[in-house]
Amino acid sequence: MVFLTRKAEFSASHYYHNPDFTPEENARIFGKCNNPNGHGHNYTLEVTVKGPVDPKSGFVVDLKQLKDVMSREVLDALDHRFLNKEVPEFLTKIPTTIPTTENLAIAIWQRLAPKLNRAQLHRVRVYETPDLFVDFYGEA
Amino acid sequence: MVFLTRKAEFSASHYYHNPDFTPEENARIFGKCNNPNGHGHNYTLEVTVKGPVDPKSGFVVDLKQLKDVMSREVLDALDHRFLNKEVPEFLTKIPTTIPTTENLAIAIWQRLAPKLNRAQLHRVRVYETPDLFVDFYGEA
Amino acid sequence: MVFLTRKAEFSASHYYHNPDFTPEENARIFGKCNNPNGHGHNYTLEVTVKGPVDPKSGFVVDLKQLKDVMSREVLDALDHRFLNKEVPEFLTKIPTTIPTTENLAIAIWQRLAPKLNRAQLHRVRVYETPDLFVDFYGEA
Amino acid sequence: MVFLTRKAEFSASHYYHNPDFTPEENARIFGKCNNPNGHGHNYTLEVTVKGPVDPKSGFVVDLKQLKDVMSREVLDALDHRFLNKEVPEFLTKIPTTIPTTENLAIAIWQRLAPKLNRAQLHRVRVYETPDLFVDFYGEA
Amino acid sequence: MVFLTRKAEFSASHYYHNPDFTPEENARIFGKCNNPNGHGHNYTLEVTVKGPVDPKSGFVVDLKQLKDVMSREVLDALDHRFLNKEVPEFLTKIPTTIPTTENLAIAIWQRLAPKLNRAQLHRVRVYETPDLFVDFYGEA
Amino acid sequence: MVFLTRKAEFSASHYYHNPDFTPEENARIFGKCNNPNGHGHNYTLEVTVKGPVDPKSGFVVDLKQLKDVMSREVLDALDHRFLNKEVPEFLTKIPTTIPTTENLAIAIWQRLAPKLNRAQLHRVRVYETPDLFVDFYGEA
Repeated sequence: MVFLTRKAEFSASHYYHNPDFTPEENARIFGKCNNPNGHGHNYTLEVTVKGPVDPKSGFVVDLKQLKDVMSREVLDALDHRFLNKEVPEFLTKIPTTIPTTENLAIAIWQRLAPKLNRAQLHRVRVYETPDLFVDFYGEA
Repeated sequence: MVFLTRKAEFSASHYYHNPDFTPEENARIFGKCNNPNGHGHNYTLEVTVKGPVDPKSGFVVDLKQLKDVMSREVLDALDHRFLNKEVPEFLTKIPTTIPTTENLAIAIWQRLAPKLNRAQLHRVRVYETPDLFVDFYGEA
Repeated sequence: MVFLTRKAEFSASHYYHNPDFTPEENARIFGKCNNPNGHGHNYTLEVTVKGPVDPKSGFVVDLKQLKDVMSREVLDALDHRFLNKEVPEFLTKIPTTIPTTENLAIAIWQRLAPKLNRAQLHRVRVYETPDLFVDFYGEA
Repeated sequence: MVFLTRKAEFSASHYYHNPDFTPEENARIFGKCNNPNGHGHNYTLEVTVKGPVDPKSGFVVDLKQLKDVMSREVLDALDHRFLNKEVPEFLTKIPTTIPTTENLAIAIWQRLAPKLNRAQLHRVRVYETPDLFVDFYGEA
Repeated sequence: MVFLTRKAEFSASHYYHNPDFTPEENARIFGKCNNPNGHGHNYTLEVTVKGPVDPKSGFVVDLKQLKDVMSREVLDALDHRFLNKEVPEFLTKIPTTIPTTENLAIAIWQRLAPKLNRAQLHRVRVYETPDLFVDFYGEA
Repeated sequence: MVFLTRKAEFSASHYYHNPDFTPEENARIFGKCNNPNGHGHNYTLEVTVKGPVDPKSGFVVDLKQLKDVMSREVLDALDHRFLNKEVPEFLTKIPTTIPTTENLAIAIWQRLAPKLNRAQLHRVRVYETPDLFVDFYGEA
């Protein structure tokens, strides 16, 4: 049983706003992140899969397939996007899902988990900045 | 004569669009960066000043003053902002200044140079991503 | 259940010396770190908390509160300090607690754990250098 | 119980080829890595050991001993080597063990685990590039 | 006048050997790098171009064109290759050009300079490891 | 003409104090750095030499010799030291040389320049932290 992690980057913008909060609550809880024009980040994504090593290839997962799934399911949908306006998980609805790093990690897990048929998804890590990151292991 | 460099980070969003271009030109020249909703980056700014070392303090520049100038003139204006909509240098006007990394480095130079009274500004470096950066030395 | 990690840096000096050891033992076991004048490091601290995501804010923890607790309980006490001479956990006493990276991680855990009332402290990681770090999960 | 991790680097070359595969299978599965002349990497190795902190030294493991074991058992054997031609675990034999990052992590674990007599080996992490790494915890 | 730098990575293997040297000289001068099987590195390439900013696009150079030139002229030729056996500049000949970081930087300059028609090549930087790099400015 | 840069790290402690200043001036000008117990850093040193490439070896400088000079002249004297108390350039004297990053870069230049007989010293860069560094080119 080994764990293999592959990194990728994407650039996106977002803002934090809950329509159920008063303007004062939004300002107090979200601070500068409440600016409705949005601001952005170079996100770094780490996807970890686990499984036994195939004795013929020496691989736990076909790296090209993993890269393709990450590109198709995650990067194509999030890169160069305004998360609140263009990504279904975060479109304004009732109740709103705020595009925090926490919710972004969960959304990426839900996009990837059903598409990885051989290796098992173990962890999704999302760095919003080099000094702040979130890990999600698929556990409610 | 020594050169001292201080780094700082800010997060902002932007998009590339020239109203003098046709939609086809905007799409061809700017690609994904033409998305009008914007996307974002964790920018890294490096400010380099030069000068002789003060024999009493051992400093080429008072680090606290340098930090204050960088915060007041640059970070307060750019951090957590949509550059095209909120930063004067890049507001839509005729002709438009596109908020590329090149133009961002020049704008930051112009903000800092007149405010550094003891040390001399030598270089402004702006990283848009870890793999792309621009240097400006104030030379036309 | 998500895990959120925030990094911070501090600069401190220390040295390794056990008064119960002979001078030869101190020299053999601690090598260059036995220099009583001390030497220093840019420490990097990673604090990981875990908990469910608040559906209203999208946060597992209020980032500003976490930052304040880290500053007040850890950085204010350790930054720009000589650990052996100024930090209570490492003051010379019988028996002495050597300010190794191991003991520093444990001390930081003990400072933080009782102050985080909403999220649960999961891990304290301390880098002494980019090539050496210690993790502590609060388990005896 | 604390976990201490030490990093080290080595430079090696390798290629991927399974003599039981047809040339077409080797090309399809291994792509550019199938080039028999080999190509190379700056590998980064992270070795994590766990154990209680010795109250006299403040150490979970003698860092000098750990460094010596890593050098003697791993770096001396792998650094500046062509893995397929010079490292016993990967010499062409039936069946072949392909020198993938997965198999390299397992081989390093097997080299280190019996040589660490005080602390217990917890994890071997091998970075092939900054964007790809494998973890092995010794579990079949 | 601004300077724009773009990074790229490639993985290659090489060894150092001068057929005009005696075996003892090769061993003494090149050490472990003299191993004829080769060893490898994750090279990092930084290409810096300079020029005025195009007022319409805000670009000093079309980033896509720069990326294409770097891929076609450098990465396609060097990535996943054994430099001594597969790259024309370093094939064994009389006199031999040793594939040191110095000569690699010069070779990459010579490949790129004639292909950049709008912006002017300013500097080629090649990192062999994170701790060793060479800069070449095209000056004999 | 190529430029080759080699990095090295050392850990040291220091404090800033000018006996010609009043206590109030020392506190105001040096802030937390005025703590007489000292605090420390993991310094990163980059030494750049320049010269033509030797056609026989492909080297601008013998890397082993460069490494030996850096170790003997700089690292052995500074690593694991309290700069103010143990390094001649910074010992308390009249007038005092404060061990700022600026003065440290100059001191390292003066130690290295006369010892590099083949290649010419071009630049000394010293990082006090990842966010603050000084360059010195030997020019008064």
